[in-house]
Amino acid sequence: MNIRMVRFVLGRILLVEGLLMIPSLIVSLLYQEGARAALSFVFPIVLLILVGFLMCHRTPEKTSLYARDGLAIVAMAWVLMSIFGALPFWLSGEIPSFVDCFFETVSGFTTTGSTILAAVEPLGKGVLFWRSFTHWVGGMGVLVFVMAVLPMSDGHGMHLMRAEVPGPTVGKLVSRMSDTAKILYGIYLAMTILLIVLLMFGGMNLYDSCIHAFGAAGTGGFSNRNLSVGAYDSVYIDIVIGTFMLLFGVNFNLYYLILIKRAKDAFASEELRAYLLIVAISVLLITADICSIYDSVWTSLRYAYFQVSTIITTTGYATADFNTWPGLSKTILVLLMFIGACAGSTGGGLKVSRILILVKASIRDMRRMLHPNAIVTVHFEQKPLDEKTVRSSQMYLTVYVLVFVLSVLLLSFEETDLVTAFTAVAACLNNIGPGLEIVGPMGNFTSFSWASKLLLSLNMLIGRLEIFPMILIFAPSIWKRKRSATSLQQKLRNLRKR
Amino acid sequence: MNIRMVRFVLGRILLVEGLLMIPSLIVSLLYQEGARAALSFVFPIVLLILVGFLMCHRTPEKTSLYARDGLAIVAMAWVLMSIFGALPFWLSGEIPSFVDCFFETVSGFTTTGSTILAAVEPLGKGVLFWRSFTHWVGGMGVLVFVMAVLPMSDGHGMHLMRAEVPGPTVGKLVSRMSDTAKILYGIYLAMTILLIVLLMFGGMNLYDSCIHAFGAAGTGGFSNRNLSVGAYDSVYIDIVIGTFMLLFGVNFNLYYLILIKRAKDAFASEELRAYLLIVAISVLLITADICSIYDSVWTSLRYAYFQVSTIITTTGYATADFNTWPGLSKTILVLLMFIGACAGSTGGGLKVSRILILVKASIRDMRRMLHPNAIVTVHFEQKPLDEKTVRSSQMYLTVYVLVFVLSVLLLSFEETDLVTAFTAVAACLNNIGPGLEIVGPMGNFTSFSWASKLLLSLNMLIGRLEIFPMILIFAPSIWKRKRSATSLQQKLRNLRKR
Repeated sequence: MNIRMVRFVLGRILLVEGLLMIPSLIVSLLYQEGARAALSFVFPIVLLILVGFLMCHRTPEKTSLYARDGLAIVAMAWVLMSIFGALPFWLSGEIPSFVDCFFETVSGFTTTGSTILAAVEPLGKGVLFWRSFTHWVGGMGVLVFVMAVLPMSDGHGMHLMRAEVPGPTVGKLVSRMSDTAKILYGIYLAMTILLIVLLMFGGMNLYDSCIHAFGAAGTGGFSNRNLSVGAYDSVYIDIVIGTFMLLFGVNFNLYYLILIKRAKDAFASEELRAYLLIVAISVLLITADICSIYDSVWTSLRYAYFQVSTIITTTGYATADFNTWPGLSKTILVLLMFIGACAGSTGGGLKVSRILILVKASIRDMRRMLHPNAIVTVHFEQKPLDEKTVRSSQMYLTVYVLVFVLSVLLLSFEETDLVTAFTAVAACLNNIGPGLEIVGPMGNFTSFSWASKLLLSLNMLIGRLEIFPMILIFAPSIWKRKRSATSLQQKLRNLRKR
Repeated sequence: MNIRMVRFVLGRILLVEGLLMIPSLIVSLLYQEGARAALSFVFPIVLLILVGFLMCHRTPEKTSLYARDGLAIVAMAWVLMSIFGALPFWLSGEIPSFVDCFFETVSGFTTTGSTILAAVEPLGKGVLFWRSFTHWVGGMGVLVFVMAVLPMSDGHGMHLMRAEVPGPTVGKLVSRMSDTAKILYGIYLAMTILLIVLLMFGGMNLYDSCIHAFGAAGTGGFSNRNLSVGAYDSVYIDIVIGTFMLLFGVNFNLYYLILIKRAKDAFASEELRAYLLIVAISVLLITADICSIYDSVWTSLRYAYFQVSTIITTTGYATADFNTWPGLSKTILVLLMFIGACAGSTGGGLKVSRILILVKASIRDMRRMLHPNAIVTVHFEQKPLDEKTVRSSQMYLTVYVLVFVLSVLLLSFEETDLVTAFTAVAACLNNIGPGLEIVGPMGNFTSFSWASKLLLSLNMLIGRLEIFPMILIFAPSIWKRKRSATSLQQKLRNLRKR
């Protein structure tokens, strides 16, 4: 491991986190929340900038990074960011327990939206702004942001980007990594601003609009209202947020294709079509299922559309308590939790493309079983399905199931019912937010022990970083310094290869 | 498809089923249950022998079978057997609806043990004997039985055996397939008789001993008592049945190894060790968890041991209502439902060896991720893990998850709660029997609609035959007759290969 380079990159990330906290400080000052509220931002900002500066003021000589260094950096970055990011909650005294603060911050950065707060309205405006802003930062990825604002020499960024951007395959949009990052963040920022404006048209004030736009853009789900989006009870706001959540669940590469006038290619995306089809079918089924609960088909449609959108994109905003809905609707919503949004979006879950790959590969393998001598190929996104992608998707599913099962088992050591344990892990691992029963849309995670909260925090990080960085960081060999001799030989060999 | 040969093999199976029904007729006559009870066996026996004889009296000229023919035969055989096997229940009038009769018979042959009967005690002795005898027949496999009693020319049996014997890989014990089948059935019969004798020592009468020995041997779980094994409330019987269920969940190849004095090799089996370890840990955890419910640690241990044994071997006998146990115990039991017994046993589920392979392959892949240039090999059962086995296990998991999810979704169209839908599918797909809530150990499946009962029957068949035969039978290409020219060329090529 290239320790100097790891330290350098981590330093930059902490520096950037310090700068990203400044808007929340300004909000706190604007609302005149007093000295303690302001200091609870000032102290972490100074600390982050200081520590960050000390760690990255000297550029290391060797800037080479291996794939495993990329994994380690991403994992450590997200843990460190969450620890430092928890400070404002703790210092302001708004959330007394540090484990709770950490849980809330992890939930923010990973865009999960699970909360330990029974009521959010009593909290200060600055702290709530920071809470939702972490969604926005985490949605597109912190390392991607760092790459956008502080470009690195290329070739190293790819390992970091691959470890942070969700989906079975990651492609550069343009040849330079930092340009790709800039384009992604540009689209993200533009869409967020559009959403803020649209929400203000619907009668929300600027502050509330920002909070809900951050939550929708990052597909996080934190609100500043106890009743979440349901508090506004506005058809317009439900439709706007419902639609934008779906838009943020689309692969951002497609928006880039539209920008460069290749809209036809974008709409030809199999993943996009499957995603929209799943949404449409789910909305129709749930609307029919909940018709008897609400007074009209339109009301049912409105709630069904919003709930499907919030769950498949793994956002977690609520306008209705689906805990009280009939069995079919609950089952569909739980299944959507696992499907998740598109690859390369801000959403979580298994990702639509991964599921398409798994289904197609299974059909191919079964056809091979019937015709052992025939040559059977399957296409995905207009290309023959590559064996490596299939293997890595199947392996992903396997490890995902193992992590899921182990987490449910560990969580069951607490006195909790099966549905709560199952859906709490599902909600955290898929970065959704609410589950069912105790952790339902009108419930929260406060009743868990600190051990369970840490376990669920780990689940959120595992889900956001797509498992491997967070697991491999526990492997001893990731921490080994390359022996200089072998490292030298390796380098020579690599040079020769080029 | 070699239609003549398929017809021939199916005919033999029906013939054998007719003969296998005779003991139940004798039981009915011995207990003097009257003319209707006797005729409800006589009619199906005559029908099966007649139809079977007509189908197989002429040996086809071409006896070649492709792998897909093997899949089709196994799938059709199990469906046909269940339809004919349902006749005694229907004709005797004990179960009025034919769908219910079919469900009960499928549940019997697949050794699931799910029932639509609220009370079994009012039923006739002959019918109950047949109900439990289907477990015994289905446990080791009907085709394996046919091969043992009516040997076929070798080379064709392998495809059938592979499609019927559970587990990621199937090996012959001895060079001749029919001898392998005879050895397996010999061990199976000997162990069943031993269990009957031991149960009679415990004070059970011969009839009850047979019923419970069939259920334990096939890891099925049908009882002739409403309270299942709990009705006897005997520590001795709990321990004997609990232990024998575990023994029937072990790969039968290991017993053969012990028979030929290679016990050391048998005990070196990684699958066996993992299986016993899982049982031990589960028993300890559940004992600790339910200690507060029962009056002593020994009572808790007794119930925990029996429940773990009944669930991991996918039998489904009950001595306690685990529906009322605390969360941790329920979670462990639900997880054990999916793990299942060892490959090559009479138990269902994913199988311990498949899970070991998946875990080991995941660890290997993660190590490869850290060290892309290193050569990483993983061993299983003293051999390097073969890539083909890994791939097929990962594919199995993928299709298994897809089938599971689709079934839960379809079942949710009925008004049912999430836990019932989830555990009903889990109980049927893994061939266990009871689930939780409505279908808990003291509940039953009668409240489902006929459509859901057929869906769950399909789930049981899919689970018992390890998915592919039952799915591929719906593929149109499996039904295509091979064009004679290609078939001839193929044959010549095969001959040359030899």
